[in-house]
Amino acid sequence: MTTDERLQEYYGRLQSRHLGPLWDSLQSIMTKEPKPRAIPYLWKWRDVHDFVMESGQLVTPERGGERRVVFFRNPGLEALEPWGWGSLTHTLYAGVQLLLPGEKAPSHRHNQNAIRFILEGSGAYTVVEGERVYMEEGDFLITPAGLWHDHVHEGDQPMLWLDCLDIPLVYELGVTFFEAHPEFNQPVTRPDNFSVDRYSVAGLRPLQDRENRYAPQAVFKWSQTKLALDGLSNQDPDPVDGYAVEYVNPATGEAAGHTIGAMMQKLPSNFHGQAHRHVHGAIYHVTRGEGYSVIGGVRFDWQKGDTFVIPNWAWHEHVNTGPSDAYLFSTNDLPVMEALHLERSERYTEGHQAISERFTGVESSVL
Amino acid sequence: MTTDERLQEYYGRLQSRHLGPLWDSLQSIMTKEPKPRAIPYLWKWRDVHDFVMESGQLVTPERGGERRVVFFRNPGLEALEPWGWGSLTHTLYAGVQLLLPGEKAPSHRHNQNAIRFILEGSGAYTVVEGERVYMEEGDFLITPAGLWHDHVHEGDQPMLWLDCLDIPLVYELGVTFFEAHPEFNQPVTRPDNFSVDRYSVAGLRPLQDRENRYAPQAVFKWSQTKLALDGLSNQDPDPVDGYAVEYVNPATGEAAGHTIGAMMQKLPSNFHGQAHRHVHGAIYHVTRGEGYSVIGGVRFDWQKGDTFVIPNWAWHEHVNTGPSDAYLFSTNDLPVMEALHLERSERYTEGHQAISERFTGVESSVL
Amino acid sequence: MTTDERLQEYYGRLQSRHLGPLWDSLQSIMTKEPKPRAIPYLWKWRDVHDFVMESGQLVTPERGGERRVVFFRNPGLEALEPWGWGSLTHTLYAGVQLLLPGEKAPSHRHNQNAIRFILEGSGAYTVVEGERVYMEEGDFLITPAGLWHDHVHEGDQPMLWLDCLDIPLVYELGVTFFEAHPEFNQPVTRPDNFSVDRYSVAGLRPLQDRENRYAPQAVFKWSQTKLALDGLSNQDPDPVDGYAVEYVNPATGEAAGHTIGAMMQKLPSNFHGQAHRHVHGAIYHVTRGEGYSVIGGVRFDWQKGDTFVIPNWAWHEHVNTGPSDAYLFSTNDLPVMEALHLERSERYTEGHQAISERFTGVESSVL
Amino acid sequence: MTTDERLQEYYGRLQSRHLGPLWDSLQSIMTKEPKPRAIPYLWKWRDVHDFVMESGQLVTPERGGERRVVFFRNPGLEALEPWGWGSLTHTLYAGVQLLLPGEKAPSHRHNQNAIRFILEGSGAYTVVEGERVYMEEGDFLITPAGLWHDHVHEGDQPMLWLDCLDIPLVYELGVTFFEAHPEFNQPVTRPDNFSVDRYSVAGLRPLQDRENRYAPQAVFKWSQTKLALDGLSNQDPDPVDGYAVEYVNPATGEAAGHTIGAMMQKLPSNFHGQAHRHVHGAIYHVTRGEGYSVIGGVRFDWQKGDTFVIPNWAWHEHVNTGPSDAYLFSTNDLPVMEALHLERSERYTEGHQAISERFTGVESSVL
Repeated sequence: MTTDERLQEYYGRLQSRHLGPLWDSLQSIMTKEPKPRAIPYLWKWRDVHDFVMESGQLVTPERGGERRVVFFRNPGLEALEPWGWGSLTHTLYAGVQLLLPGEKAPSHRHNQNAIRFILEGSGAYTVVEGERVYMEEGDFLITPAGLWHDHVHEGDQPMLWLDCLDIPLVYELGVTFFEAHPEFNQPVTRPDNFSVDRYSVAGLRPLQDRENRYAPQAVFKWSQTKLALDGLSNQDPDPVDGYAVEYVNPATGEAAGHTIGAMMQKLPSNFHGQAHRHVHGAIYHVTRGEGYSVIGGVRFDWQKGDTFVIPNWAWHEHVNTGPSDAYLFSTNDLPVMEALHLERSERYTEGHQAISERFTGVESSVL
Repeated sequence: MTTDERLQEYYGRLQSRHLGPLWDSLQSIMTKEPKPRAIPYLWKWRDVHDFVMESGQLVTPERGGERRVVFFRNPGLEALEPWGWGSLTHTLYAGVQLLLPGEKAPSHRHNQNAIRFILEGSGAYTVVEGERVYMEEGDFLITPAGLWHDHVHEGDQPMLWLDCLDIPLVYELGVTFFEAHPEFNQPVTRPDNFSVDRYSVAGLRPLQDRENRYAPQAVFKWSQTKLALDGLSNQDPDPVDGYAVEYVNPATGEAAGHTIGAMMQKLPSNFHGQAHRHVHGAIYHVTRGEGYSVIGGVRFDWQKGDTFVIPNWAWHEHVNTGPSDAYLFSTNDLPVMEALHLERSERYTEGHQAISERFTGVESSVL
Repeated sequence: MTTDERLQEYYGRLQSRHLGPLWDSLQSIMTKEPKPRAIPYLWKWRDVHDFVMESGQLVTPERGGERRVVFFRNPGLEALEPWGWGSLTHTLYAGVQLLLPGEKAPSHRHNQNAIRFILEGSGAYTVVEGERVYMEEGDFLITPAGLWHDHVHEGDQPMLWLDCLDIPLVYELGVTFFEAHPEFNQPVTRPDNFSVDRYSVAGLRPLQDRENRYAPQAVFKWSQTKLALDGLSNQDPDPVDGYAVEYVNPATGEAAGHTIGAMMQKLPSNFHGQAHRHVHGAIYHVTRGEGYSVIGGVRFDWQKGDTFVIPNWAWHEHVNTGPSDAYLFSTNDLPVMEALHLERSERYTEGHQAISERFTGVESSVL
Repeated sequence: MTTDERLQEYYGRLQSRHLGPLWDSLQSIMTKEPKPRAIPYLWKWRDVHDFVMESGQLVTPERGGERRVVFFRNPGLEALEPWGWGSLTHTLYAGVQLLLPGEKAPSHRHNQNAIRFILEGSGAYTVVEGERVYMEEGDFLITPAGLWHDHVHEGDQPMLWLDCLDIPLVYELGVTFFEAHPEFNQPVTRPDNFSVDRYSVAGLRPLQDRENRYAPQAVFKWSQTKLALDGLSNQDPDPVDGYAVEYVNPATGEAAGHTIGAMMQKLPSNFHGQAHRHVHGAIYHVTRGEGYSVIGGVRFDWQKGDTFVIPNWAWHEHVNTGPSDAYLFSTNDLPVMEALHLERSERYTEGHQAISERFTGVESSVL
């Protein structure tokens, strides 16, 4: 036998004993810089919207209609069963949910964190820990790990919203918990808009929340978010992010979505952001306006309703080509990277990225 | 010599060597429960106001008029030189400051924390870290340790405000730092109301403040404070505190005044609070309304503008006897007690306190 | 078309647009309790040892011999490319490394954390941040994320050690960084055993390390570990864990391996532990003694040198069947679960587990 | 009336209403840099020892002999009743306690923190939370706030130790709690030396202490402390502090004495330290050796047993003039300054301090 033949025979014996040779395997995973399998991608709202509405006709409650969600599958991740199909970044799932007038979704809780961003409709509410939270376009809601939540639609038009959960993270860690509430809908024990009213103002915390800081504010209204962004107009826009506010727990300053970071950016007309990159990945949803983003050298044109994804460590910059302010909602896994001390970031210093045909990422292994 | 004589002779020799006998001394300071030297006391606004206005005539800028403050001296502490004269509680100083139209106060900084609550007037501003903050009745301002600050009055009526600093704490620790700015007034480098505009809304933090969380909000406007309290009306008042909000750093949830806690309470008409007590002490200023508080068994009647003090560990309860909501502003040293792990509290469980003629506090030593 | 046919056609169209139907997919991943893909498994030392020694002959330095590691492939994870082949738990990789007399491994650093537990041999050292750390049987070493490290073998017998890294975690997050040192071996800048000498004693921290608390102790010697365990003999063994000590950063009390928890347990002769389960997974290596562990109902007999794995949320109990103390070294991802607020645990209250033929885990989906 | 007369009349009226004029008072307390009332001072062991032994004859148990402590009175603080008599620094009390053979001290607890450093004798023990801790020369013990403790002397020679408590701090804050145990001595519920045995080794924490990190190690033995200092001999001495180790909670890295920092320094023969100053104050006790310290320009010669005090912000440097290593034990209020964000420090950069006749401190007010 040649040495190569002897090695192959040895590798075969190793494999049969559930062992492996590091020297032969390390190259495939050790990279100089992050080379996530997730790639940049953009979905047009028209497509997603039509698919979601079609599900309203095809999927009856008996067939799981209470979870009528069309979710995004990152093309770089979907080949990897079972969760490739559902991951947008390495840690985050996102999809567009449809709730039809008169429908209800049963109460449940889980150890994943969830956030929700309302796209269309009104008249539906979510109940979180006994509080009924009515949802309107542009609102941001949280249903943190461990809290019961369910939905009821009392309006007369379809409700559409964006869901984002850390399902891929919890699934990959192998530690999913999920529990159904003993009743279909949990009882309502608090006044409507309880938490919104209690947290209308910055810097003034209800005294009772000194010792109850888990998730005091269930919803962040669009009107408030817009107000917060307008409040930044007394300063220049950040060269990378424009005007941007993070959704945080008002009692602690931590990310409102716990493991899921979230923010809203306002890009003034003609804003052309500088590029940067960071370890965490992000999911963007265009709330208003039109423009494009260059991600890893590839240009993605966007308008209201489009969803796109920025993989870990990919250079990215945003451009508003429209006549008005553009608003970009986004979620990310920065809190995870910070909790594990993995976050880093870099500013792109050579002007703007050159546009290329396809995303390449980090090519070469260092080994 | 008798034994007592021998002991006295021994004590004399000890004293001359800067030594002391613990067995003879411990009783005077070791108590079963806190027996602060501070006592409950109340000052009527009419008195304080007149004294302050009189100082406007007597004290010219050459005689220190730039610090025209009449401060409160807790009768239980004033005998103790040099700081008895200025302490309201064991850690907190408070006084009423007058700034006349056209006057300026020079820029300085120190390692004490300061908060300011505006009582009368308008048209004056404080500059904190380059931001001009205009002050109106009911506003709460912070000038944290280490930040330059100075005042300018552009209006045409006297400005009056309540100052509260942790001067006694820092003085007793022996660690005062104070520094005058090289210029009389520091330069203005930010737009007016910069920080108020940036923090108008709960739960939405400017992205830049992820890494700059020291003191992002310089002023908490009365209109916002009132809004925050109104937002609690969807719940029952707390049996002890009524409706209450704390002034906190909106980026972190920590006390806005660092070592100085502060809150605003709204007591509905006919509210008669339950008594409780806590290790930290507190200073109250009546913002609106009329009523009384029972502190350590003594009744103190109050109305708008009055100032009263609640010593450490004294039972206290608040009663609104007027036809409208009463508003009580207060500061406290809870952050200090928490930082040193000294805080405790208790609820009074036997109805309301009996009213007595004088405050007794904790009588007996345990030794 | 039937409804099912229409749905299938719809699913096909979704798939082609990188979208998916949640109602059809959620069942496969949402479980009432964790159902990790990792399974319990045990490798016998004799096998692993022989394979490793064989690699010493087959794999020359030119073929990657500087990373002559045979790693463990959890049978439940290995089917999942590319990292199934290398994961022992969902977050942890482990393997047995061989360094032959006279060999060197080049200096590098990465954002994975690494720990090392020495199995056989002496005379080799690792250099971490300029400190040469000599390795002996039973020693525990750390090479935390971001620190340069390399190996040199000056002895005359083969060195064998267990490596454990959080490679699967960092890989799944998509954020790997790896960097080679400009020189083959980094310069030695500190005295030998610098950090061991500085941290010989509990509770006495070098004053300089007030502000340098990252990874002050590079190695935890076996003699010290044994001493620490003997120090617990004044108390009863814990009913679940026997006598157990965690490897922690002596300056902060945090896990010495950052994201990788590690401990050494001593089970007295005839100890039969109670079962418990927890969200985090663990890898065990038998340091001394003989016995068995029941994991998820399956019995695994072990003796010195064997390696076994406890998946997330699997019931497990340990039994010492030998005449002497048994020592079990283990690593885990508890720090990750705690950082992400995912940890939970439960005690098994019905005596001991019934022994079954095969591990079943959590069977049923809740959806 | 002249203006001055009118002012004096006004000041009199203010005073009668428990009010004061800030513009007339601020100068006395606002200093550019800390000007503590505490001054540097040194007590010779021979004096202190003789006084303490004399108390053994004069003070019978009926006269409080169970607290036979001669305490140090900082000459700069003693004029200030009631606590001037007992303070060594602004926050710390210290004294030398005598326990005669056969004596007992009753069990009690309080919200002050206490540490104890053993000077002479053996055969006595302290019981802390059910653990009997035998005391030997050079040992460092903690009795943290809230834990029951009492003493019993089973030996045949007098025991002498240094007590240090944060009594002045807690007293000045007005929040003292003190409680006697229902029994004279608390029951012993743990094996002797329980905590010492459990924490013999750095970096290995008993698994049970993951969730019990309050005060796991009751005593730090002299032999261990010496070992820890010897472990630093592989590095150069720090130019200011020589070789120094802090006493910390081995489970968390926090100060073992909570609000009371403590350390042991070893100064090699001929060591002449550089001067520095810091906001916190310190109390030194010479454990071994001879030399001098220059504090605020004044030279204090010391030898074994002497006690001296370094006020806040005073320049100080230590010199070993003896032929052997000198050991200096010290306590400080650094944890208090850090908790309140008041700490700062500076290195003296102009060689060594000039020696002067008397301590001056910070002379001038800035106002």
